[in-house]
Amino acid sequence: MIPVYVAGAGMTRFGRSEWSLMKLASVASLAALQHAKLGDIPVDGVVVANMGAARVNRQTALGSALVDQLALYPAAAESVENGPASGASAFKVGVQAVASGMADVVLVTGVERMRVVNGLEGTDFVASLAHPEAEYIYGVTLPSLAGMFARLVMEKHGIERKHLAMVAIKNHENGAKNPYAHIQQTVTMEGILTAPEAAVNNPPIAEPLHLFDCCPVSDGAASVVLVSEAVAKRLGGPRIRVAGIGQATDTHTVHEREDPTDLKSVRLAAGQAFERARLSPKDVNVAELHDAFTILEIAESEASGFFPAGEGHKALERGETRLDGTLPINPSGGLKAKGHPVGATGVAQLVELTWQLRGECGARQVQGASVAYACNFGGFGNNVVASVLRREDS
Amino acid sequence: MIPVYVAGAGMTRFGRSEWSLMKLASVASLAALQHAKLGDIPVDGVVVANMGAARVNRQTALGSALVDQLALYPAAAESVENGPASGASAFKVGVQAVASGMADVVLVTGVERMRVVNGLEGTDFVASLAHPEAEYIYGVTLPSLAGMFARLVMEKHGIERKHLAMVAIKNHENGAKNPYAHIQQTVTMEGILTAPEAAVNNPPIAEPLHLFDCCPVSDGAASVVLVSEAVAKRLGGPRIRVAGIGQATDTHTVHEREDPTDLKSVRLAAGQAFERARLSPKDVNVAELHDAFTILEIAESEASGFFPAGEGHKALERGETRLDGTLPINPSGGLKAKGHPVGATGVAQLVELTWQLRGECGARQVQGASVAYACNFGGFGNNVVASVLRREDS
Repeated sequence: MIPVYVAGAGMTRFGRSEWSLMKLASVASLAALQHAKLGDIPVDGVVVANMGAARVNRQTALGSALVDQLALYPAAAESVENGPASGASAFKVGVQAVASGMADVVLVTGVERMRVVNGLEGTDFVASLAHPEAEYIYGVTLPSLAGMFARLVMEKHGIERKHLAMVAIKNHENGAKNPYAHIQQTVTMEGILTAPEAAVNNPPIAEPLHLFDCCPVSDGAASVVLVSEAVAKRLGGPRIRVAGIGQATDTHTVHEREDPTDLKSVRLAAGQAFERARLSPKDVNVAELHDAFTILEIAESEASGFFPAGEGHKALERGETRLDGTLPINPSGGLKAKGHPVGATGVAQLVELTWQLRGECGARQVQGASVAYACNFGGFGNNVVASVLRREDS
Repeated sequence: MIPVYVAGAGMTRFGRSEWSLMKLASVASLAALQHAKLGDIPVDGVVVANMGAARVNRQTALGSALVDQLALYPAAAESVENGPASGASAFKVGVQAVASGMADVVLVTGVERMRVVNGLEGTDFVASLAHPEAEYIYGVTLPSLAGMFARLVMEKHGIERKHLAMVAIKNHENGAKNPYAHIQQTVTMEGILTAPEAAVNNPPIAEPLHLFDCCPVSDGAASVVLVSEAVAKRLGGPRIRVAGIGQATDTHTVHEREDPTDLKSVRLAAGQAFERARLSPKDVNVAELHDAFTILEIAESEASGFFPAGEGHKALERGETRLDGTLPINPSGGLKAKGHPVGATGVAQLVELTWQLRGECGARQVQGASVAYACNFGGFGNNVVASVLRREDS
């Protein structure tokens, strides 16, 4: 791939916010622009990732609006939507703008302000990515799809609810160290599974998934600044290269897949990203996976190539994916603890990884990381974007 | 610019449709794919342009849905939104995907199904591109902005209502020759302006703009297939090159512009497109301009560089922009007669121009056209995409 670099990264804290959609987007963008230390180098492209603003915030053309907020005219601008993978899709579009030679500096900002609607409309808005005739009209929701998927995968590989809880415990532990996380609070096996009061505190959402298997609904924004090789050289500073991006789609409905437990789109997207990066899963030092539901972290850790099928929950149990393990997964707290403002999530994964590769993560820093991987899971696995970042040391 | 070619183009008829959003998108896509004669060359990217489906059709992630409808997995896919310029923005994103080397064949499909909502909600949904705090909450709509703009421009350049009517008459005349147009019916100066019944048949919408100064609200879809140079060579057939794309943004609100009658974003976008194409407005043989309101065709014909400021309506009056004139504008009928399914419009302009350059337009064919220009006007002029296509003769 033609060299493209992440020169800066910034985000708002995720959670419930009183800020407007554009204020969220602006604050994250300004943080990333400041982090990039662009000086007088102009931004010539803006890509906004967002899923629901047209419906839940009654606002469209967010790219133009962000250009205006930050007075970046006449920069080119548009919005990109790809369900929960909107963030990484926008990142890819930004990378392609630079790689095509049509832009030198592109700001990619993911934003979602979804807590303005009630839980029912929020769930319905996300479900609008489901198949309109085969799923959506029958009331399918993302938690319901995840519940069915979890049951199949758990049966197949002998995964127990305690393993799902281990994902939550680990990610909440990481999130407690992340000042940008929605939930900065640890949870225990007793509290969410074994103590008698766990039945009340951790009620079922879509069996076998309970409340603490699901990410929260969050507002928030995250931004990265992408630059060409020429600009990266001019800027100096740590050189974080977009080593490879892969993307794959699959059947819209899960039930049409040959093996519904096989996340083929993750497998293909990861394979393509690693191939383009000329790296392998073994080279990865830190990963952000799309744990909208705890089962997804386990399944994606296998489909991305880090563990053989059926071994993800064992690696988790052995502590390999903890912050001090051999492959830390979701040091940011993941969607589970950091939160999931849908359009912002894919960008936020890359913000965390950029910071990790630059050694700027404080208490949750993965020591000496030089290769990072993100999996942004769109639809229910029918559109996945995988990205590999690499620190190029001077 | 790295060579990228339009290998095929297709669309549905615009108008009121009973087809679902995905059927509209599929039919246009299949027409374009068939036109491209790809054979066994796989599509590796899909970009869908759409503005309102999240709200008016309760459907998101249209890129993934279209991949599924056409069984194009594992092609990469996403949606692009940029208000009324969504189509050309998606086209640009597709071009960049190919130019970056990350894709060889990209299907770009614009689609909108907006007649499912009532006029009030339809107007409101388009107005959601306006500034949320300075315009939208005060009830600003696109016709109201266009009305104010029209009054200023008309006063400045001595444009009369008869000139606006001439745009409508010309475009309806062209639309009557276009089997894909929403309205395939001619209109006369008497019928819409001078006869006593014109006051009833052509009522004011936002003075000085009347009904026949405004495009209809349409359902429809349009698609193009973009290919790399290697694929274009393999395909043979007419070689339509994307010679240049330009894009520029301006202040969100019109009243903040130094001169509200100056379409600076059109000027900058056109300038960039021509510069990248190494061509000038003089080289253009046929143009599609964004006449959502008649006044815009006149203003864009000047800002794009075809006529000096204040001369556009005179060139129109002299017949220069008619099908048999020196620079035919909107041979398709334009938004005025062809219709304006918002997300599809920018792609439909490029469909028409591809057909024109291939000599496939029948009764509305511009003879011997080799350079074509499109202006897709987003926001109220705050995000404009200009494209130059060129027929490279074998």
